[in-house]
Amino acid sequence: MSELRWDPFIDSWVAIIEARGRRPVDFITERKRIETSVCPFCYGQEDKTPAEVYALRPDAGLPNQPGWKVRVIPNKFPILRIEGQLEARGEGVYDVKNGIGAHEVIIETPEHERQPADLRAAELADVFRAFRSRLVDLRRDKRFRHIVIYKNHGLEAGATIPHTHSQLLALPVIPPHLRIALRASRDYFRRKERCLMCDMLAQELSDGRRLVRVDGEFAVFAPFASRHPFTLRIVPRSHLHDFAQLTDHMLLALGETLHDVLRRLRAVLRDPPFNLVLHNAPLAVPRPGRPEFWHSLPADYHWYFELTPRIMDPAGFEGGTGFFINPTSPEDAARYLVEAVQ
Amino acid sequence: MSELRWDPFIDSWVAIIEARGRRPVDFITERKRIETSVCPFCYGQEDKTPAEVYALRPDAGLPNQPGWKVRVIPNKFPILRIEGQLEARGEGVYDVKNGIGAHEVIIETPEHERQPADLRAAELADVFRAFRSRLVDLRRDKRFRHIVIYKNHGLEAGATIPHTHSQLLALPVIPPHLRIALRASRDYFRRKERCLMCDMLAQELSDGRRLVRVDGEFAVFAPFASRHPFTLRIVPRSHLHDFAQLTDHMLLALGETLHDVLRRLRAVLRDPPFNLVLHNAPLAVPRPGRPEFWHSLPADYHWYFELTPRIMDPAGFEGGTGFFINPTSPEDAARYLVEAVQ
Repeated sequence: MSELRWDPFIDSWVAIIEARGRRPVDFITERKRIETSVCPFCYGQEDKTPAEVYALRPDAGLPNQPGWKVRVIPNKFPILRIEGQLEARGEGVYDVKNGIGAHEVIIETPEHERQPADLRAAELADVFRAFRSRLVDLRRDKRFRHIVIYKNHGLEAGATIPHTHSQLLALPVIPPHLRIALRASRDYFRRKERCLMCDMLAQELSDGRRLVRVDGEFAVFAPFASRHPFTLRIVPRSHLHDFAQLTDHMLLALGETLHDVLRRLRAVLRDPPFNLVLHNAPLAVPRPGRPEFWHSLPADYHWYFELTPRIMDPAGFEGGTGFFINPTSPEDAARYLVEAVQ
Repeated sequence: MSELRWDPFIDSWVAIIEARGRRPVDFITERKRIETSVCPFCYGQEDKTPAEVYALRPDAGLPNQPGWKVRVIPNKFPILRIEGQLEARGEGVYDVKNGIGAHEVIIETPEHERQPADLRAAELADVFRAFRSRLVDLRRDKRFRHIVIYKNHGLEAGATIPHTHSQLLALPVIPPHLRIALRASRDYFRRKERCLMCDMLAQELSDGRRLVRVDGEFAVFAPFASRHPFTLRIVPRSHLHDFAQLTDHMLLALGETLHDVLRRLRAVLRDPPFNLVLHNAPLAVPRPGRPEFWHSLPADYHWYFELTPRIMDPAGFEGGTGFFINPTSPEDAARYLVEAVQ
C-alpha cells in the first residue's frame, strides 16, 4: 500500500510506493520501453485497459470500442489508489496519509505513430477538452487537494509507452512548488492588488527578449530564472486561475500555441524528450464548518503550462540544494526558437 | 558573465551561466568523461591546475608540488567567479546578482585509481579536515551567504573527471532547500525550545526501522519521507549547527561512518553513482548597522550530510511539481544496508 509522508525538515510530502518482492539490485533501474506486441492504446485493444472514464467519440459509438479521438482511462498501475477513505495520522514528528488519489491516462490520438508535434491544433484542442472534463469531474471528490496533468514525451522524460499520452494525478496534498507559487501570488496580490503572473507577463511582453510567441490569447516565454535549458512557460494573457474555465475558443488557441511551440522545439533541438506540466490552481482547502470554501479555487493564482526539454540531467547538488545551474540563458533559448525554421 | 537570477513565482535563485558561441544542438548534452592523457589531479601535474589554496602535506613540502595527501584548488572552469564586487539590482519583478562566488575542488587522494569506498576512515577524516579549513577561511568573505560542499561520484552523478574529488561552492544567496529547512528549524525551536533534527534523530534511534548505523558521535538513517531510493542522512548526535565546529576526534568518527556507509552501498547497489551534499548552517545575513550579526550562524539549525545514490532518474513531473514518487521505502533501504555483507 502506498503512503504519503511528510518530513518537517524538507516541509514536503513524498509518495512512498511499496514494491514488494524485489531484490536491492532491482532498484538499479535503467528506464526501458515497455515492449508489447500489441499496443494497448491503439484501436481494437480497448479491452486491454481499465474501462474508460471519458472519451471523445464524434460518431457517438459505444464506450470501450474503437471510434474515439481522445480516450481517458484509469492507469492500470496507479501510483495512488482511488478506493478507500483518506486517512491521516501523525507519527512522532512526521505526518502520514494513506495513498489515496486518482491516476489516469489521456490517450491523445488513436494513431500509434504520431508524435506530439504531429498533432494538429484542433487535435490538441480535443486533448485539452479531455483535460477540462476530467478536472471538472474529479474536483467534486472531496478527498483531493490538487490535480496535476503532465505529459512525458520520450524515454528520457519517463515515457515508457511510446503511443503518445498524458497523465493525470489527483493528490490529497499540495505539491511543494505549487505551495510556494501560491504563497508568492497571494502575498503579491495583497501588497499590490495585482496578479504576479499578470505583471510578469506584462514585463515579458514589453521586454521581448525572452518571448517566443504571442497571440490574442496566449504568450510563450522562457522564464527569466529558468532552472533548465529551453524551459518555456505557456501563459493565458487574461487572468485565469483555473484551466477548466477555458472556453472552446481558448482551447483551440491553446492548441495552436502548443503546436507551434512543439514544432519549434523539434526544429531547434531535434525532437527532444520533454515534460509538459499543467500548473493549475489547487482545489480549495476545507475549513471546519465552512463547506462553501470547498469550491473556491484561489483566484490570485494564474495557471500556466511549463514545458521542459530533457536535454541535460541536473548533476551533482541541484537535487540536494534546490539551487540550479543553467548553462543556457533564456534569452538565447528564446532567440533560437523564434528564429527556428519549421 | 554568469548571473544569479530570482524569479518571484518560484521564489528561488538560479545561476544562469553564459556559454557563448554554441549552437542549439550543442545544448543536447550527453554527459561525458573528460578524457585527458594525463590526469590533472595526479602527482606531478600540479602545474596543470590553478595554484592550490590548501593542501595537507605531512612532510611540509613546497606548495603545488607532489607530497600532498589532500589538495584544494580553485576550479579551472568556475560556475561563479571570485573576482569583483557583489552587485545586486532589480529588473522589474525580478532580482539579479552578478555571478560572484567561490568554486573549488578538493582532491581527496593523489592515487588515481582509488574509489571513495576504498579510502580509509583516517583518509576521509583528512578530507573533512580540508572541508573544515576551507569553511573557516571562506566565511570571512562578506560577499557570501552560504557554502555548499558536495561530491559527485560516477558519471551519472555528474563526475566528469574520474579521479575522486569533492567540490565547494560559496554562494551569495541561500539555496531554496536550505531556506525551507532553516524556517522549519526556527519555527520548531520557537514553539518547542528543542531542535527539530535532534527530535527527529531521537525518534529514529528509538524506532530503529530506518536506522543504518549509529555510534557515539554519528547516526545514519534513511529519511522517513525519502524522495529517492536509498537516500541517507548522516547526522551528528550532539546538536551542532556548524560543520567547522567538528573536533579532530569527530572528524575521525565521521570518516569511520562514511567509510562504513560507502562500503554498504557498494555491496548492496554494486558501486552506485552518488551525490553527497553537506547541508551546513548558512553564513549569517548582515543587518544594517549590526555588524556583529555577520558571525552568528543560526544555532537552531542542525547540520547533516545527505547521500543519494543515483540509481533512478526522476521521470515526468517531479522536477516540475517538487512532488516525488519513491518506489523504495526507507525501511526496506535501511534493512538491505544493515544486512549488507561487505
